[in-house]
Amino acid sequence: KAVNIDKVLDEIAEDEIISHSRLLQTATSVREISKQLQRRPVKMTVRNVMIVTKARDNELVYRTRELAEWLLCTPRYGSDVGVNVYVDHKLRRSARFDMQSLLAKDSRFKDMLRFWTPDLCWTSPEKFDLVLTLGGDGTVLFTSWLFQRIVPPVLSFSLGSLGFLTNFEFPRYKDSLDKIMGDVGMRVNLRMRFTCTVYRYQKHAGPGTPEHIEAEQFEVLNELVIDRGPSPYVSNLELYGDNNLLTVVQADGCIFSTPTGSTAYSLSAGGSLVHPDIPAILLTPICPHTLSFRPMLLTDSMLLRVAVPRNSRATAYCAFDGKGRVELRQGDHVTIAASQYPFMSVLSQPTEWFDSISRTLRWNNRGAQQKAW
Amino acid sequence: KAVNIDKVLDEIAEDEIISHSRLLQTATSVREISKQLQRRPVKMTVRNVMIVTKARDNELVYRTRELAEWLLCTPRYGSDVGVNVYVDHKLRRSARFDMQSLLAKDSRFKDMLRFWTPDLCWTSPEKFDLVLTLGGDGTVLFTSWLFQRIVPPVLSFSLGSLGFLTNFEFPRYKDSLDKIMGDVGMRVNLRMRFTCTVYRYQKHAGPGTPEHIEAEQFEVLNELVIDRGPSPYVSNLELYGDNNLLTVVQADGCIFSTPTGSTAYSLSAGGSLVHPDIPAILLTPICPHTLSFRPMLLTDSMLLRVAVPRNSRATAYCAFDGKGRVELRQGDHVTIAASQYPFMSVLSQPTEWFDSISRTLRWNNRGAQQKAW
Amino acid sequence: KAVNIDKVLDEIAEDEIISHSRLLQTATSVREISKQLQRRPVKMTVRNVMIVTKARDNELVYRTRELAEWLLCTPRYGSDVGVNVYVDHKLRRSARFDMQSLLAKDSRFKDMLRFWTPDLCWTSPEKFDLVLTLGGDGTVLFTSWLFQRIVPPVLSFSLGSLGFLTNFEFPRYKDSLDKIMGDVGMRVNLRMRFTCTVYRYQKHAGPGTPEHIEAEQFEVLNELVIDRGPSPYVSNLELYGDNNLLTVVQADGCIFSTPTGSTAYSLSAGGSLVHPDIPAILLTPICPHTLSFRPMLLTDSMLLRVAVPRNSRATAYCAFDGKGRVELRQGDHVTIAASQYPFMSVLSQPTEWFDSISRTLRWNNRGAQQKAW
Amino acid sequence: KAVNIDKVLDEIAEDEIISHSRLLQTATSVREISKQLQRRPVKMTVRNVMIVTKARDNELVYRTRELAEWLLCTPRYGSDVGVNVYVDHKLRRSARFDMQSLLAKDSRFKDMLRFWTPDLCWTSPEKFDLVLTLGGDGTVLFTSWLFQRIVPPVLSFSLGSLGFLTNFEFPRYKDSLDKIMGDVGMRVNLRMRFTCTVYRYQKHAGPGTPEHIEAEQFEVLNELVIDRGPSPYVSNLELYGDNNLLTVVQADGCIFSTPTGSTAYSLSAGGSLVHPDIPAILLTPICPHTLSFRPMLLTDSMLLRVAVPRNSRATAYCAFDGKGRVELRQGDHVTIAASQYPFMSVLSQPTEWFDSISRTLRWNNRGAQQKAW
Repeated sequence: KAVNIDKVLDEIAEDEIISHSRLLQTATSVREISKQLQRRPVKMTVRNVMIVTKARDNELVYRTRELAEWLLCTPRYGSDVGVNVYVDHKLRRSARFDMQSLLAKDSRFKDMLRFWTPDLCWTSPEKFDLVLTLGGDGTVLFTSWLFQRIVPPVLSFSLGSLGFLTNFEFPRYKDSLDKIMGDVGMRVNLRMRFTCTVYRYQKHAGPGTPEHIEAEQFEVLNELVIDRGPSPYVSNLELYGDNNLLTVVQADGCIFSTPTGSTAYSLSAGGSLVHPDIPAILLTPICPHTLSFRPMLLTDSMLLRVAVPRNSRATAYCAFDGKGRVELRQGDHVTIAASQYPFMSVLSQPTEWFDSISRTLRWNNRGAQQKAW
Repeated sequence: KAVNIDKVLDEIAEDEIISHSRLLQTATSVREISKQLQRRPVKMTVRNVMIVTKARDNELVYRTRELAEWLLCTPRYGSDVGVNVYVDHKLRRSARFDMQSLLAKDSRFKDMLRFWTPDLCWTSPEKFDLVLTLGGDGTVLFTSWLFQRIVPPVLSFSLGSLGFLTNFEFPRYKDSLDKIMGDVGMRVNLRMRFTCTVYRYQKHAGPGTPEHIEAEQFEVLNELVIDRGPSPYVSNLELYGDNNLLTVVQADGCIFSTPTGSTAYSLSAGGSLVHPDIPAILLTPICPHTLSFRPMLLTDSMLLRVAVPRNSRATAYCAFDGKGRVELRQGDHVTIAASQYPFMSVLSQPTEWFDSISRTLRWNNRGAQQKAW
Repeated sequence: KAVNIDKVLDEIAEDEIISHSRLLQTATSVREISKQLQRRPVKMTVRNVMIVTKARDNELVYRTRELAEWLLCTPRYGSDVGVNVYVDHKLRRSARFDMQSLLAKDSRFKDMLRFWTPDLCWTSPEKFDLVLTLGGDGTVLFTSWLFQRIVPPVLSFSLGSLGFLTNFEFPRYKDSLDKIMGDVGMRVNLRMRFTCTVYRYQKHAGPGTPEHIEAEQFEVLNELVIDRGPSPYVSNLELYGDNNLLTVVQADGCIFSTPTGSTAYSLSAGGSLVHPDIPAILLTPICPHTLSFRPMLLTDSMLLRVAVPRNSRATAYCAFDGKGRVELRQGDHVTIAASQYPFMSVLSQPTEWFDSISRTLRWNNRGAQQKAW
Repeated sequence: KAVNIDKVLDEIAEDEIISHSRLLQTATSVREISKQLQRRPVKMTVRNVMIVTKARDNELVYRTRELAEWLLCTPRYGSDVGVNVYVDHKLRRSARFDMQSLLAKDSRFKDMLRFWTPDLCWTSPEKFDLVLTLGGDGTVLFTSWLFQRIVPPVLSFSLGSLGFLTNFEFPRYKDSLDKIMGDVGMRVNLRMRFTCTVYRYQKHAGPGTPEHIEAEQFEVLNELVIDRGPSPYVSNLELYGDNNLLTVVQADGCIFSTPTGSTAYSLSAGGSLVHPDIPAILLTPICPHTLSFRPMLLTDSMLLRVAVPRNSRATAYCAFDGKGRVELRQGDHVTIAASQYPFMSVLSQPTEWFDSISRTLRWNNRGAQQKAW
């Protein structure tokens, strides 16, 4: 029986006005629901597994073969074989992946071993019940880029030391996957992504035609960076929140980071570390000209807009998760909003985030320490 | 007709297991409800107004008298007089407040002019429909301290320049209050507070008796500061989240700040500016010994606990919104949790927070600026 | 009678070995000499004054005319006329400067009013006894650029608010210049500049030919910036001091700043404020990847060298006082050394530097302040 | 033949006025002398060696015995025995040091093995030609404290990992000391110390008697910290340089650090890393209330003075190298000046400082790193 949250929304909507005790009570309840949801395990039948890796890395291709074979062979859900596996279509002709020897093991594998393309991810994300990544944090970012709309649950294996986004150890993959595909199920994080949309200013827009037209759109998992690019001049960027001018940014650039991205570029520029469950947009300036323009966290219910003024001397450049350098010319703007398509990552353990930062930032190793006599 | 959120919670609770699409859908709906709630105006009949001010400041006492008189005299809600007014019981004998001349104006005022005490705020917060503060941010913190449980809506007037928490200009009080008590109603922020509870270690606890007993408890609106106090030695503080040891803090101290407090002490120690709508706990270290121990934002659904190890050389000291220096001795701990009693502040305008930081931090005034030729 | 410091150097050089008490004694004496020199006024006959301004700014051209006229007309050094004045050769035909009406005032002015070109500054800096700048800090940087070798004493007027480098108020120019050209004399700061030299890697250097040849050379007063330019990739820059590899810089870039430049770009990137009398080279990383790679001050007796590794994926870009974007390709390097040609700026008063920072950074205006009740 | 720097000073003093080219020339020469001095090896006959260690640490006492025995026994300077050794007088009765078995080895040792006391260091520092420390950076700070006036050359051994101040590995002591006491000699750093003097305000000073009298005086090698101590209130500290009011510090405290101390407490509070050869005083605020009050480097030719205003609500506390908590009451002040008694530390190698920071701050280990795909 489905929970009818829509009905709740309708009911709230009917109340034009609300008393302060009702507001308080409702807010408390909503907080409680959020909390419950975070702790709820997800369980489902995993019939189709996608594997993402760097097809150019030989070692990773061998591990992909190993993993694919194990998934195909290990009996699941009452069958005497395993589940369908999608691997990168680039591996179809890879000698190291050696598809033929795999298909030779069982005639049914011919149907069960499949190949994904970026196009398939774009058009049919629902085909995949679970995505496994093999590699570093970059491979996870690539997976986010593949799924510009709905993202299946993603479980990330690291072959060497664990990263911020890769929290499962590859050597223990059998144990991890048996649990998740078995009775235990999995707990997931809904990691916020941003929908970033570039709008181009139409200088010669006639009457009745819009001044701006929509151009590129990207989902980002880490951050949008806007900087001055190769220009020696700094552009003054206008920052709007829900159409109100909040401030004019005078800096080498600014970073709009998700909580997930708080351990990446934003950290180098002085931003805080932000737990991925917090619904917030980090605005971290790069070399701001005003010392009091400090890193900030904005509410994710806000629609942000960054505009290059029409009379600006300089233009600006956008990079989306480090990719796709797009120039913002005079009059153009880019909007940033919490996406309706979060990135669903499988949690290795409740303190996963803390473990990743203390491991990667070497927390418990003292640096400068005042000496006592 | 009341919205039955409890029923929703029950329904969610029945599902032991949830599919990932259901999880995603529910999470999206809950986010939407949160968003709607933030934008919903509160409207109610304001029959009892409390005024908080510094009773020792002559200027403020004169303004309190002016405000009280106007509230008592201005006809509201179909009556030919105004509403009940509670002023500080210390003003009962104040020559400057001059209660007698006020009561002489209308015989009904004898009943309508009332006096509050900290005790009344503690036992009967529901007596007040609206609290007005006159003074600076310190007066707002004092109001938060008065209401250790439910807080009525608080509207804060500044007599001079506006502060982070005082967003209404006193000279325009008639206009502001006529709107709020009239058909327009008010929009409020539910500002998170923390419930901080000190637990004392019982060294000689017998078998069957608890190792720790609860001691002081405070609601804080800005922050809890834990530092080494007068001791030259730094204590290593153990930080637990939901009973997992997250890290050991080696620093002169650490600040647990609400988003509201992000513009106060936390900012001086290097913390980020955090919009008050974001449900997060800021952990800002003071002079950390490890350079990578950066300011952090933790999810407010976590129960935090800071403990002084039993074998620690030094003790630590807690201050709650700058008040009440409490020593944590070896084995003691203090817990920090998002309070179920938020601080309800009346919003002056949607961009109030941005206005306050750009005004107070002088954002649009350039500091260091690279010169162009 | 000239002080024979060279003789002292010779004497020191003769001692191959020195005892520790001698070393201590000599070091103390040298410190004392340095201190005395800083406090010594400079006095000389100023017969030739150069004026630098922005020839495109109308207001500044009018002020230049006013100043030139006053300098030419005011009797000095026993003559009944003033001193020779050099103005920008671009003003020769300026209607606003109106040379003709000036020359008409006194037949001797035809010889006394002269015009400078960048070429003259380069070949004959000794022609100028004093340089006056009218404009902002940018005009002072331009003056530094004009004098790539010996710099005459420079006195900088501001027309509006004073800057970091412009410490004299134009409205009081008569008083200031009468003192300096009279019996009072002037006190000067010898502001360190860097000599930055770009060396190009010769890929196909034959045997016996050098691997690197010298290319561009610049004197900088504020800073050398090395960054990744338009490239999305960060180059790992090798930092050498006196030919020892000190570290490999992983960052968006790094700034080598003089103490004078410590209030400019370096400050935006997190550098400290450094008094201009301190002989040090600031190394301030831009968005470093290692949190412990903090801003640093290196001794100015070191020869620094920054190299792009031969196998680097990316190149790097140099900017000298914000000018002259030069690409460093794989194998190239740039050296930074304290220049033997410091920038001699006339001091307005002993606390000039403190005044400039408290004024420009708005020191005595509190920003975030913890509120007391 | 001694270099007569005093004569140079006299000659400079005779010139009341100096031309700008003379000033430039002299300044350049003085810089050159400084540079030469830094690179000059110190050579002398080491006849008396003092060993400083923690007498309570058993391991260190065994190593002290080993070192003392080797120094006593190894023939030097044409004799068939070694040099005189001073050990801590607390070891006279130490069973672990076992003086008797040492004296039994050679009858001459009775005269050669001597014992130092803090008193002897205070009255006769010239008795020691070389000081060896065994332990951590704290032991080096303790040695600085022992020698409040002239400091003999100090060579610091570390038993475990090297620290900021301990740059020689104990296991290789024979090799290191043979070189230094042989023909190679040693290179030393003259590390700046501060002379800090507390002055007490005499409230009831009669006419003709001074308002302030001198109280405590300390030489510090790392830093002077002035903070609010146990008080919840922040005192506004007045900062004077050469008797000019520079600013009023509103902060939890401020740190006056030597370059040597730049890797200690100052670093935790956000200060820069400063090479020990740079003659500068670091002023690093602790949690400043004004965001633009940034860490600063002041020239060491300045006499700094920090005063608690007479009408201050709060007092302040001083700590000298982490020791000796002294209260500054209303009207008191403390002065900070570069000491005429620097700390002479033996250099292990030219890049010693860079090695120590890259080792201790883990420079070449990446922390946060932007991931490439």
